[in-house]
Amino acid sequence: MSATPRVMNKEALGPEGARWVADALREAMAGGQRVSLALSGGSTTGQVYRELVKQDVPWALVDFYFVDERFVPPDHPDSNYLLAEQTLLKPLGIQPHQVFRMQGERADRDQAARDYEALLPEVLDVVVMGMGEDGHTASLFPGHAALEERQRRVLAVVGPKPPPWRMTLTLPVLQSARKVLGLVNGAGKRDIVARFRAGEDFPAARVTQAQWMMDTAAAGQDDVKGGGAMSTARSSGELAQFGVLGMGVMGQSLALNVADRGFRVSVWDIEPKRFDDVRAKGAPASLQGHAALEDFVASLERPRRILMMVTAGAPVDSVMGRLEPLLQPGDIVLDGGNSWFQDTRRREAAWTQKGLHFLGVGVSGGEEGARHGPSLMPGGPAEAYALVRPVLEAIAARSEGSPCVTHVGPDGAGHFVKMVHNGIEYADMQLLAETYDLLRRGLGLSTDALADLFTQWNQGIAESFLLETTLQVLRKKDPETGKPLVEQVLDKAGQKGTGKWTVQVALDLGVSVPSIAGALDARNLSSLKDERVAASRVLPGPTGESLSADERANLAAWVHDALYAARVATYAQGLRLIQAASREYKWNVSLAEMARIWRAGCIIRAKLLTPLREAFTQQPELSNLMLADNVAPVLEKMAPAWRKTVGVATRLGIPTPVFSASLAYFDSYRSAELPQNLTQAQRDAFGAHTYQRRDRPDAGFVHSDWS
Amino acid sequence: MSATPRVMNKEALGPEGARWVADALREAMAGGQRVSLALSGGSTTGQVYRELVKQDVPWALVDFYFVDERFVPPDHPDSNYLLAEQTLLKPLGIQPHQVFRMQGERADRDQAARDYEALLPEVLDVVVMGMGEDGHTASLFPGHAALEERQRRVLAVVGPKPPPWRMTLTLPVLQSARKVLGLVNGAGKRDIVARFRAGEDFPAARVTQAQWMMDTAAAGQDDVKGGGAMSTARSSGELAQFGVLGMGVMGQSLALNVADRGFRVSVWDIEPKRFDDVRAKGAPASLQGHAALEDFVASLERPRRILMMVTAGAPVDSVMGRLEPLLQPGDIVLDGGNSWFQDTRRREAAWTQKGLHFLGVGVSGGEEGARHGPSLMPGGPAEAYALVRPVLEAIAARSEGSPCVTHVGPDGAGHFVKMVHNGIEYADMQLLAETYDLLRRGLGLSTDALADLFTQWNQGIAESFLLETTLQVLRKKDPETGKPLVEQVLDKAGQKGTGKWTVQVALDLGVSVPSIAGALDARNLSSLKDERVAASRVLPGPTGESLSADERANLAAWVHDALYAARVATYAQGLRLIQAASREYKWNVSLAEMARIWRAGCIIRAKLLTPLREAFTQQPELSNLMLADNVAPVLEKMAPAWRKTVGVATRLGIPTPVFSASLAYFDSYRSAELPQNLTQAQRDAFGAHTYQRRDRPDAGFVHSDWS
Repeated sequence: MSATPRVMNKEALGPEGARWVADALREAMAGGQRVSLALSGGSTTGQVYRELVKQDVPWALVDFYFVDERFVPPDHPDSNYLLAEQTLLKPLGIQPHQVFRMQGERADRDQAARDYEALLPEVLDVVVMGMGEDGHTASLFPGHAALEERQRRVLAVVGPKPPPWRMTLTLPVLQSARKVLGLVNGAGKRDIVARFRAGEDFPAARVTQAQWMMDTAAAGQDDVKGGGAMSTARSSGELAQFGVLGMGVMGQSLALNVADRGFRVSVWDIEPKRFDDVRAKGAPASLQGHAALEDFVASLERPRRILMMVTAGAPVDSVMGRLEPLLQPGDIVLDGGNSWFQDTRRREAAWTQKGLHFLGVGVSGGEEGARHGPSLMPGGPAEAYALVRPVLEAIAARSEGSPCVTHVGPDGAGHFVKMVHNGIEYADMQLLAETYDLLRRGLGLSTDALADLFTQWNQGIAESFLLETTLQVLRKKDPETGKPLVEQVLDKAGQKGTGKWTVQVALDLGVSVPSIAGALDARNLSSLKDERVAASRVLPGPTGESLSADERANLAAWVHDALYAARVATYAQGLRLIQAASREYKWNVSLAEMARIWRAGCIIRAKLLTPLREAFTQQPELSNLMLADNVAPVLEKMAPAWRKTVGVATRLGIPTPVFSASLAYFDSYRSAELPQNLTQAQRDAFGAHTYQRRDRPDAGFVHSDWS
Repeated sequence: MSATPRVMNKEALGPEGARWVADALREAMAGGQRVSLALSGGSTTGQVYRELVKQDVPWALVDFYFVDERFVPPDHPDSNYLLAEQTLLKPLGIQPHQVFRMQGERADRDQAARDYEALLPEVLDVVVMGMGEDGHTASLFPGHAALEERQRRVLAVVGPKPPPWRMTLTLPVLQSARKVLGLVNGAGKRDIVARFRAGEDFPAARVTQAQWMMDTAAAGQDDVKGGGAMSTARSSGELAQFGVLGMGVMGQSLALNVADRGFRVSVWDIEPKRFDDVRAKGAPASLQGHAALEDFVASLERPRRILMMVTAGAPVDSVMGRLEPLLQPGDIVLDGGNSWFQDTRRREAAWTQKGLHFLGVGVSGGEEGARHGPSLMPGGPAEAYALVRPVLEAIAARSEGSPCVTHVGPDGAGHFVKMVHNGIEYADMQLLAETYDLLRRGLGLSTDALADLFTQWNQGIAESFLLETTLQVLRKKDPETGKPLVEQVLDKAGQKGTGKWTVQVALDLGVSVPSIAGALDARNLSSLKDERVAASRVLPGPTGESLSADERANLAAWVHDALYAARVATYAQGLRLIQAASREYKWNVSLAEMARIWRAGCIIRAKLLTPLREAFTQQPELSNLMLADNVAPVLEKMAPAWRKTVGVATRLGIPTPVFSASLAYFDSYRSAELPQNLTQAQRDAFGAHTYQRRDRPDAGFVHSDWS
């Protein structure tokens, strides 16, 4: 059995099964080709079909087949086709030419089976099947001769229960299917599941590639309170598959997420009482805490896979120092904190020399993301990534069916990309703050009106997690005063290390990230509240400025476009920084992949990432996002509104540092001629720094006497 | 003899003597009080007086006295008064009430001397005197009884040469004078100078506080080619007073500067052939090179004073490692490179533990400044600074009579301030580049017209070294094409480490320096010439935009004001950064002093530094320059022009990143309300970062559920 069975509350089988099938379909059609899906009957599969209707799958590319069928007409209550039609095919509006049903209404059963063989594709892409209390699957019953069939692909068989005649795919067809989901439900299945676990041979067990999903009753466990998925219980002495070290908020959430995905998890914290918090959050029995670090390490199967969630900086080195003597060659430690990428490079190199693996993993999405699907940015040795990939893919957020995780590159690549993600986040938040300020102070919109406007914006190209958060925040009322709560919040914003590092390392790499730098400055200046209040008396600023009728009518629309354009310039800066670091450190980071894994789970997820991913998929070596074929025309179209936005803010004295800095970046980058000929001439005049001549730039550097 | 005699070419005696006297006068009147200057006769003093006329001294505060006078009428060719009148008093338009001459025309010589006693101030501030071939000074001749006079302050005496009767100040008056300049000129003085050096007693030698200046003939040396001042020759075995290590351009220039100021100098370089370069630049015999580092160190008197001029970074540690075993407790090493201030802190602490002194010295002014008067920013132990102060004050540039050097603070304070100086320099240069671009591309001014405009600006409040350099650069014609040379310079500007460090450390200290960051970005973007040319085709920018008549008529004036205001914002950022570091590292840096020592010698010297110094003199704890009483009203007045400048640039698509960033800084700082309440609310919403309530900010941080 290759994949670990996943155990969950009964109600979770439908959504989780549907998610699995949708992912499998989208993966199979990655090149745009048609895919085949073979359906079974049964109440549990019906639950999956009902949930599958909610999944975003290009259904026109899917052909529907059946695993087995009773010899009854298609409108008979026992017909598997009828179940599929009602729960799936009809709700989705599937066209008749996509549906290949087994014709249970025919009298010549053998001919019907042979005819179905002719329709069946050589290999099925995705199959959904079940497991009977007797261990049958499809209509392949224990001890039946059909089980040994190797030539025929479809057979008419007689089953033990009425109606006795059925048509079924044979084992060779099921065993050659690309992906198989097996569903098991109910206490009646407890014995067969136990036998399955004990390694017994019966029909369902022979489809070895199947991913089984079962409810707690079938698995012989209690339900988890609060619902959700949960791992198989661990028998005493059974080794855990994954360790999480550090039970802060993020560590707890990730440990629960990993356990939910069916892995046996060990956890450790310097404060063992934190295990109670994890327990209180509904940790399954398969998640076990260890008070002693030695016990924690010893509880893991080898090669050990340990995710560290400790504060970045010295604590990471400290914990690594304690872990190192307990580990054995090939063991893998993942640092999921916001570590400085140069630290990660150093740590990875040191451990590689010792035969240990170290991965620096960017984790974005906050507590919510960590618990239910973060965007993950792992960097480090490829062979180590391969060993943790199943876990990371299982816990990551999903976008268009694929998990939001990829091997970013060697050593510090993952932490670097996470750092830049956060830098972009700073700028994006500041652009929203400036938008808010300009429409509030400039146009006089109320908080409620702003929330309405942003709700509207969030339906279109401006859609993003941060815009959604903004409108949520604006809608929230203060329980004390009844006014919008945001108006009660003091205008001082804090910050942590990653935004600062982004700007500092950009300077080291000679890359301009003015929008991110401007956002940091804005937070710094916001913290000087008392000084600002005092300064506002000495420097009152423009008086008597007001908006023209044109401005009043159009400012909101201009700001909408300015927001989009400035956001593009911000992403352009961040991606260019990743590109520069990737070259400097030979990481070979794929920007298209970064855009893909940022599509869900992370804070900067936004509709904008779709054209962005397209741009770098088509032109992986594109020097700047702003030049992309699907971006440049949009920027050109929006630039006038961007200029008007900055112009109005400048006149009114409303600071828009990041709108301005982004526009200056745009205008500088698209200027064939800049005035730095004067700068360089000055440098040569007072510092003999030399310069290149415009008429022969390749002739090298010359010096002139400028006096 | 306390001060080392200074030896120079004959032609240098006039200018150097005049500079010395002017400095002494200005220093004496620092509190605004009247000062006394006593004059002698003789051809060399005449040269000094002629040069003194060119010095900027508030002459209305000076009262003129005489050291001695022949008993002849004031219009007699032998009259010392006549010489002073013709060379000094008349050209300066000195008022009669300021001149107290000895009345040589009177018959009762003793009464005339007694009357002069009554006029004489208790202590003379500044005295100019000479040294006769027989060792006399004033009219005090060897062996004469007047030499022993202790009561009378003025005497009538008979000299050995006609006309015999003279009136003279007595030794007690000369010996009590605050500052005395002694001038010696010509080969005829060679013997008496040799006797003076041998420590013989004669009248001139008794005025022990005198600073002697002599020409090479009197000193028994050859002239130095290329003119200029030069030190006394070193007899073999005489120890040097100062060492310079590293004979790059800056090391050479500083070594020559120190030697010029009369100090015996030893130099060392890893490439001894570089001594030839120094020699070729006119090094006096008092500057000696040593091929072996051991010999170099051994050649210095203790405590040794060694200025290192080596590349910042690892070379400094390497040289220190080689020096350390050769030094003895109390020796002082100065690092004059652009070292990272944290390196300086580390080095200073390490050497202090070993009983050695380490000073980090910022040196600004380029090659020209180093050679003839840099601005110096030394940081390190105060007791070590006291020991090098005479040398540093001697070589520094001068502003209003005081040397542009001060003890900035402990450990890395000097290098930090120099780094910020360079950061301001980056922003200032970028503002000039934007000014140039906007007036060139926006208004269509030719390079020549711009030079004319800037020449006019440089007469007013915008005056600065960098503006002057700009207009010089604009005026320079390309010998090849006859066109302005600046137009032939490729628009790619390079950079070195200090600007980058300024922004990086500002981020660490939480200080906003957007103008400096913007200037770095501008240079980075300028380097992408090929990309920009390509981008200009894809993103052509605004078309059909033109200036209104109002804009066309006023843009130059607006930009002038914007330049001044943005420069204020830039200096404000830099000074605030120094303030923050000074608090962080307990340096106690005086911003008023920084403004003073930047007034001359350095690259950012500008008229603006005068109000800036005033501001911080009156309010040393001023939180931001923009709030100063003498600055805020100017900013308020200029802000509308600043806004119009940014507005026009924004509309035309001409990038003005630093004009914009400076304005956003200004507008943010003067905004009582900023939109970071939204930012902080968002942070609390997705990251549980908490916030303060506006209605009770002191009640601590709270968290809300924003969903």
